[in-house]
Amino acid sequence: MPSVKTEGANPLPDAVCAIVFDTFGTVVDWRGSLIHSLRNFGMERKMEVSWEKLADRWRAACLPNLDRVRNGQLEWTILDELHYRTLVELLPEFGIAYLPESDLCFLTSCWHRLAGWPDTIEGLRRLRTKYIIGPLSNGNLSLLVKIAKFAELPWDVIFGADLFRHYKPDPETYLGVCKFLGLRPEQVMLGAAHNYDLRAASSLGLRTAFIARSTEYGPGQTTDLRAEQRWDVIATDLIDLAEKLGT
Amino acid sequence: MPSVKTEGANPLPDAVCAIVFDTFGTVVDWRGSLIHSLRNFGMERKMEVSWEKLADRWRAACLPNLDRVRNGQLEWTILDELHYRTLVELLPEFGIAYLPESDLCFLTSCWHRLAGWPDTIEGLRRLRTKYIIGPLSNGNLSLLVKIAKFAELPWDVIFGADLFRHYKPDPETYLGVCKFLGLRPEQVMLGAAHNYDLRAASSLGLRTAFIARSTEYGPGQTTDLRAEQRWDVIATDLIDLAEKLGT
Repeated sequence: MPSVKTEGANPLPDAVCAIVFDTFGTVVDWRGSLIHSLRNFGMERKMEVSWEKLADRWRAACLPNLDRVRNGQLEWTILDELHYRTLVELLPEFGIAYLPESDLCFLTSCWHRLAGWPDTIEGLRRLRTKYIIGPLSNGNLSLLVKIAKFAELPWDVIFGADLFRHYKPDPETYLGVCKFLGLRPEQVMLGAAHNYDLRAASSLGLRTAFIARSTEYGPGQTTDLRAEQRWDVIATDLIDLAEKLGT
Repeated sequence: MPSVKTEGANPLPDAVCAIVFDTFGTVVDWRGSLIHSLRNFGMERKMEVSWEKLADRWRAACLPNLDRVRNGQLEWTILDELHYRTLVELLPEFGIAYLPESDLCFLTSCWHRLAGWPDTIEGLRRLRTKYIIGPLSNGNLSLLVKIAKFAELPWDVIFGADLFRHYKPDPETYLGVCKFLGLRPEQVMLGAAHNYDLRAASSLGLRTAFIARSTEYGPGQTTDLRAEQRWDVIATDLIDLAEKLGT
């Protein structure tokens, strides 16, 4: 692999063998896909709900639950289950007094049908010709397999948080990937749209690629609009990453 | 999925969502590939060794080591490492007094370059349109990823023994797959060329497909020439399995 120099980043050594990707936001447009699915559900049921707001609240309300698992307040619980529980908690806020179990399960399963960004499939296909690629996500393995089949993501391997029973940014996730791949941290790159994720990976010796996703949280997004450190590669999308890595 | 009736087997319920496959022998021709690689190595080095016999002894000598891990005599050790150690033990038997570390590593890595049988890629591609497919092998995850890239196996997910820190036929492997996939045992099928493997899976409630590989161990093979029980599906190869499952 030729050395890659990107503006504002360190030269990338030739040692990288595998790239693992944050998935929600980095690889798939969870917000756009979820809003689409929720709206369809609402139209079928003739339910008037601010589905956009529900999607945003749903995602936001999951994050403190991940932290509760991380700090031991909550026993190990997979993301599918956290999605379900968080939805049940949020419904009254949206004026929904009751939904049958089958609807709760259907809505939770909307997180399995998330589409890639326009550059995702081509970018990953190109990267796959040279690297081992896979998700490293806080999603559970079965959820990630379902997303991959739905969005036609050409992964070589799937790393879900349930393989490690830890959520990112716990070190066990990044180092667990290295161990399963039989690679040293500097041979593994994390691709992510979130600076906190890259900071954690970098502190453990992994290489880093920032992939800008400035509308992940909608048009008014204020966070992660740009790389906050000199990551090894800074890319505008996955095709740009493939390009910058010579694939 | 339409119900499938195959001669001598039970009707297959419509519930199967995922098929996991034994890999060495069932999906890839480890013996033919290994002999090919070893012979090439021997020609380059001008070493006269019975490479065919070494391949057979190498595979056979690994099996008791898997059992030593299973019964606790040996701590958890991945297959790559067992391959390496077994090779070192076998060399004197083949009149090889010394090989440098780099050669030992190269020879061990021959297990990463195993080709599929002629029906493998087409069969898996067809099965993948309807099922989640992946290996469930005593190989470690990184070895299985390397084989998949080499043999172009279109897996959705990779289950290596190191995910469970148990070797087949320990129940933790089959049930671990079900847990990670979020499926009940009857929703998961094992495809294998080995009756012992299917027996273990079946006893835990998984569905079973026997795939005949009558030359896995060479022309003089005496074991696993046919299905020894009424497995759910009995197939002549992976294309036949795809056919019998309506894909």
